Amino acid sequence: MNARKGNLMNVRDDIKVLDATIRDGGLCCNFDFSDEFVTELYKTNVRCGIDYMEFGYKASKHVFSEKDFGKWKFCSEEDIRAIVGDNKTDLKIAVMADVGRCDYKTDFLPKEESVIDMVRVACYIHQIPAAIEMIEHFHRLGYETTCNIMAVSQTNLDQIEQALKMLTETNVDVIYLVDSFGSLYPENASEYARRYLAAVEGTGKKIGFHAHNNQNLAFANTIETLSYGVSFLDATVQGMGRGAGNCAIELLLGFLKNPKYDLYWLLRFIESYMPGLRERDIAWGFDLQYLFTGLLNRHPREAIDFTKKHRKDYSAFYQSLLENE
Amino acid sequence: MNARKGNLMNVRDDIKVLDATIRDGGLCCNFDFSDEFVTELYKTNVRCGIDYMEFGYKASKHVFSEKDFGKWKFCSEEDIRAIVGDNKTDLKIAVMADVGRCDYKTDFLPKEESVIDMVRVACYIHQIPAAIEMIEHFHRLGYETTCNIMAVSQTNLDQIEQALKMLTETNVDVIYLVDSFGSLYPENASEYARRYLAAVEGTGKKIGFHAHNNQNLAFANTIETLSYGVSFLDATVQGMGRGAGNCAIELLLGFLKNPKYDLYWLLRFIESYMPGLRERDIAWGFDLQYLFTGLLNRHPREAIDFTKKHRKDYSAFYQSLLENE
Repeated sequence: MNARKGNLMNVRDDIKVLDATIRDGGLCCNFDFSDEFVTELYKTNVRCGIDYMEFGYKASKHVFSEKDFGKWKFCSEEDIRAIVGDNKTDLKIAVMADVGRCDYKTDFLPKEESVIDMVRVACYIHQIPAAIEMIEHFHRLGYETTCNIMAVSQTNLDQIEQALKMLTETNVDVIYLVDSFGSLYPENASEYARRYLAAVEGTGKKIGFHAHNNQNLAFANTIETLSYGVSFLDATVQGMGRGAGNCAIELLLGFLKNPKYDLYWLLRFIESYMPGLRERDIAWGFDLQYLFTGLLNRHPREAIDFTKKHRKDYSAFYQSLLENE
Repeated sequence: MNARKGNLMNVRDDIKVLDATIRDGGLCCNFDFSDEFVTELYKTNVRCGIDYMEFGYKASKHVFSEKDFGKWKFCSEEDIRAIVGDNKTDLKIAVMADVGRCDYKTDFLPKEESVIDMVRVACYIHQIPAAIEMIEHFHRLGYETTCNIMAVSQTNLDQIEQALKMLTETNVDVIYLVDSFGSLYPENASEYARRYLAAVEGTGKKIGFHAHNNQNLAFANTIETLSYGVSFLDATVQGMGRGAGNCAIELLLGFLKNPKYDLYWLLRFIESYMPGLRERDIAWGFDLQYLFTGLLNRHPREAIDFTKKHRKDYSAFYQSLLENE
């Protein structure tokens, strides 16, 4: 259980890379991507050998208004098909469903009628029973499923162990370790990963990792957890994601030795389409304000606000966080 | 030998942080820092509990012309004293001496007449005998010494083992593992670190680590190697250093739990003095061009040139590197 799997030179066929750019990056731009951007990213992912592409959230239109968000907040079947057609490729399509913010009983077709392959259920630890109900529903519909337990760094280890035990008794395919606040060091991340891996040993279930870059460790934590057997790896183009962002997919493809992953087409996409986002003042990526919230194991909302205001008074912000501990 | 030292919560008194901003960062700006910048950085380092501050190179004025470089290329005793006086503080002063580019027999005072505490001798593997000659000279003069063996990722392991053996028989105080090309992953870095640590076991000598951030792993590699017992840690303000830069000292201070390290005054320095460097178009830090040279285990000179030209055609650059492998 404690041994590393594989080495730095070989290929591990169990590894799956999931591009979460539209979903986690969508949090930076209110899901407002051009169709051209999403289409070209889809084509790029196909060319680069990426295993899954997450198109966004399947959010409730009763909870959120369609006029307040771009369409990838809702991921209608028609909108996805407008990009991918029938998706006759090796790339699988994923969407995320948040517990409590998704009309899961009405908004999902049976898998054979849908272009979606995988539904990822995101929840906090107290929502595990609700997440399981959703997972079993999606499983019955024929989808691959994941359970992404958020904010584990603020969660009691006993609760995590209990949640893992409950999930191993379900039909979920992948359980994700999620470092929501970017507060884990590689030593912590690998310790969590080993607990998750131990919990699913012998069940055939896989463990995934979703990193945040608050302490500039998203890539390091990803390759550390994968070295112990984590196999589903979330990443985004140039790390685009909420706050400090995620593991950069270009770093991850550089690391993985499987020849099916091709960095070149990803670079073509980056140079053609990513500068346009920055020109729209869409912000993400490591900066000191995220280091502070990561260090303090806090939600990055205050750091995101600091970023949006183009503030640079790092010392005052740091002091204010310490005073509000 | 394989066990981690300490844990993520306690204080390791053997840890020493060396601020290399003026020296490695000097490579980004031809050592052209204002006196105010250097003075304020010195005061900041004192306030923040930093253990060593490297002021620059002690380069030969016969090899390099004083009119081509800022004064920290040469680090005259007078120039350092103009900043630090007699340095009646706990912060120690270091300078770097490159093998073959330093008039070491004439340019160093005996320690009791100098404000310098430590001389760091930088060399490539084939220069170890020359480095040892310099180290013994500096030791006789009364200085602390280090040997920084550069570019180990391109060096045969047998040669490294031989060099380590030779160095253990000298009076050198610290041997540095230097990831010149930023090509090491944490697994590699810790493997090297354990070899270095094993070589000096029982000798009282210490091991240091100097990271480069080509694959955005400078901080991760630093905390990984320190966890196995590396104790001299190089870092720079906002990672300022050649190419992709180094381990950011603010990340490192956030990680270290020793209360003598104070992040607040470092933040004050950063917000006051670092934007001015960026305004002068002085460039450093992670970007894709450095990922490529790191991945390919190559000197970053082509990536630095790419950066200087403000090029953004990453895919063409990547292809050109692959064609010149």
